[in-house]
Amino acid sequence: MTEETGGPELHPALAQRFSPVGFDPEAAVSPAQLDTLLEAARRAPSAGNSQPWRFVVGLRGDEVYSRIIPHLARSSSRWAVSASLLVVNLAQVHLEDMPGWEYSEFARYDLGQAVAHMTVQGLALGLDAHQFRAFDRDGLAAEFEVPAHWEVTSMTAFGVAAHAAGEVASAGTSRDRLSLDEVTWARA
Amino acid sequence: MTEETGGPELHPALAQRFSPVGFDPEAAVSPAQLDTLLEAARRAPSAGNSQPWRFVVGLRGDEVYSRIIPHLARSSSRWAVSASLLVVNLAQVHLEDMPGWEYSEFARYDLGQAVAHMTVQGLALGLDAHQFRAFDRDGLAAEFEVPAHWEVTSMTAFGVAAHAAGEVASAGTSRDRLSLDEVTWARA
Repeated sequence: MTEETGGPELHPALAQRFSPVGFDPEAAVSPAQLDTLLEAARRAPSAGNSQPWRFVVGLRGDEVYSRIIPHLARSSSRWAVSASLLVVNLAQVHLEDMPGWEYSEFARYDLGQAVAHMTVQGLALGLDAHQFRAFDRDGLAAEFEVPAHWEVTSMTAFGVAAHAAGEVASAGTSRDRLSLDEVTWARA
Repeated sequence: MTEETGGPELHPALAQRFSPVGFDPEAAVSPAQLDTLLEAARRAPSAGNSQPWRFVVGLRGDEVYSRIIPHLARSSSRWAVSASLLVVNLAQVHLEDMPGWEYSEFARYDLGQAVAHMTVQGLALGLDAHQFRAFDRDGLAAEFEVPAHWEVTSMTAFGVAAHAAGEVASAGTSRDRLSLDEVTWARA
């Protein structure tokens, strides 16, 4: 840790991460690595330990992976099919008439955390990740019989990036960030 | 990385993290360390790079910290006042009649990710974290003039844990987790 101007160094994994739009189609994620990724998500904190997350996981070439692919939007199917692993991230949702269903208002917040832990673990395993929403939510829900009190919230593609950060524009989305001052609402 | 049964090792930071209910009241977070924590959050991914997060940050002893304290619930004030740093996490919210306001349905999900990145960075700096909701949301919003299109979603207390994991029951909440099978909705 260096204490010079600018603060201690950012953790290298957090500093170097980016969302690739192309993965090495030869790279594979092993079932054991997948276990570790799920383990990272499973141990994430959640409001009242509600653990409002579930995951559909497909390793390239397996049956779940091939059932996910047809539900990708055209935009994501261009690059996501080269991922070694596709994860569909589910969050609890509120249902008015479901007494006893322990919905947490932090379901999506907590899912975001669990996915973040999974991606940090991925970086420790040499895996890059790209989260996205370009898929048929209803189609995936039907495909995997996801009941109404769960939502198909997002997907994560894991693999080995086939390009450097900034080398390929990510679907026209800027990677620019607000400044530290801009994200800081109040500070003494 | 070991490839024996059970998968590669979980990243030590993720494996060892827990939410302390007591912090060393002598430990301090420096402004430079705070910069690095905010930097970790700032660089987190978000839907369409929307960055739907803002942070109110108080270092123990400073003015912002002392303005946060009165809004803690009795339950959290028992332990959170020993934290070296209190962060109030704000997420964008939807407003019907605010044309041009770029609300993302992933605001809370993305805030969860940004907070997770901040806590992972904290672990790299030797700082434990406890996220909580036991505070007066409206009171904090008024105190820091948070407008209606932002929500005071959660708080994070950072510091050096004053006890080991599992040594103190966290407000009666179990730390047990669902099994890997239970969080896996579908897998080949």
